[in-house]
Amino acid sequence: MKLVLHNYWRSSASHRVRIGLGLKGLPYDYVAVNIFTGEQHADDYQAKNPSGQVLTLEVIEDGGERRLITQSLPILEYLEDRWPEVPLLPRDPYFRARTRMLAEIVNSGIQPLQNLSTTNKIKTLGGDPATWTVEFISRGLGSFARAVAETAGAFCVGEAPTLADCCLVPQLASARRFGADLAPFPKLVEIEARCLELPAFADAAPDRQPDAVRS
Amino acid sequence: MKLVLHNYWRSSASHRVRIGLGLKGLPYDYVAVNIFTGEQHADDYQAKNPSGQVLTLEVIEDGGERRLITQSLPILEYLEDRWPEVPLLPRDPYFRARTRMLAEIVNSGIQPLQNLSTTNKIKTLGGDPATWTVEFISRGLGSFARAVAETAGAFCVGEAPTLADCCLVPQLASARRFGADLAPFPKLVEIEARCLELPAFADAAPDRQPDAVRS
Repeated sequence: MKLVLHNYWRSSASHRVRIGLGLKGLPYDYVAVNIFTGEQHADDYQAKNPSGQVLTLEVIEDGGERRLITQSLPILEYLEDRWPEVPLLPRDPYFRARTRMLAEIVNSGIQPLQNLSTTNKIKTLGGDPATWTVEFISRGLGSFARAVAETAGAFCVGEAPTLADCCLVPQLASARRFGADLAPFPKLVEIEARCLELPAFADAAPDRQPDAVRS
Repeated sequence: MKLVLHNYWRSSASHRVRIGLGLKGLPYDYVAVNIFTGEQHADDYQAKNPSGQVLTLEVIEDGGERRLITQSLPILEYLEDRWPEVPLLPRDPYFRARTRMLAEIVNSGIQPLQNLSTTNKIKTLGGDPATWTVEFISRGLGSFARAVAETAGAFCVGEAPTLADCCLVPQLASARRFGADLAPFPKLVEIEARCLELPAFADAAPDRQPDAVRS
């Protein structure tokens, strides 16, 4: 079995999946897809990912069968279903739900509003993408911080990293890039620092990827 | 154990969860939260749902302990973890992933861009919310249709309703409300019709809820 991750260094969805693969100790081939040059719209990429989005996990089974999965949380849940040894979700159903809830605050609550196809449309309306993005990020991190206060230990939910941390760390990286103020969220920054002590988080950072462009 | 669903008749996230509760045969108390009058911002509601979003499942255990879960997909996954008897996900990890992927095409790919807080912001930029919304809905349903072509049987994934159908049916209801053209998506409309033959889907429809306002 072989895993191939089609992804982009700076995409936060890609970043989440790299962390999950790292936490589970799963090796993978890295294939870079450049969203700024529109590589995700090329015919051979579209055949893999009908949504035209960057991120696709390609699973090549030993018999040669090829499986394609898109969307960061479904990919992470797939890793969890198939390789449960290093869990990314707690066992208790309620804490599993709280973990997934935190992940969705980022995944559906913030990220769709900060991504390139959305901010490009805001520009065509004459809006300022930075103002738009920072407002949704700040509001979303506020929700995340209030929810995490009920479950946090060393990490977002208890004492081990979960899906919620896989989403938080890339979201804070994006928040800084877009210029959001993180001062109101000391607990989130503290959890991030603890995560980044782990190689799975450190190695998944955007600027450590082969396609990273340093400005 | 008692379930209380804090929700709003026309919210598509609420609609998804009502379908899931129905498919699993779980009775619940219906508490209406009116997003147009801003009830979700009231103090007692905020204590339940820190995101200020409408949807919250309150679980009151027999011992009196009260659990609060927000976000539609985490709520549905919680129902699946705790009451697995009528499954909303296939057993095979790949088909589970494809199911979740379809659910996310709606949940993170369309819904955050059509919801009231987003379209209100589009209005303040001088944009037309209808044009904005219809474009994201049409693009999203296109992705959904291409992905579903690989897994559909009678339903989105195989021969039984799943999380994907719980998301598709509310999304098509919203699409009609916003005036999107569904002619390009005959397969999705066909699956919807089959779903609506089931009481769980029919009874969850917005206009059958106690807080529905007929125009």
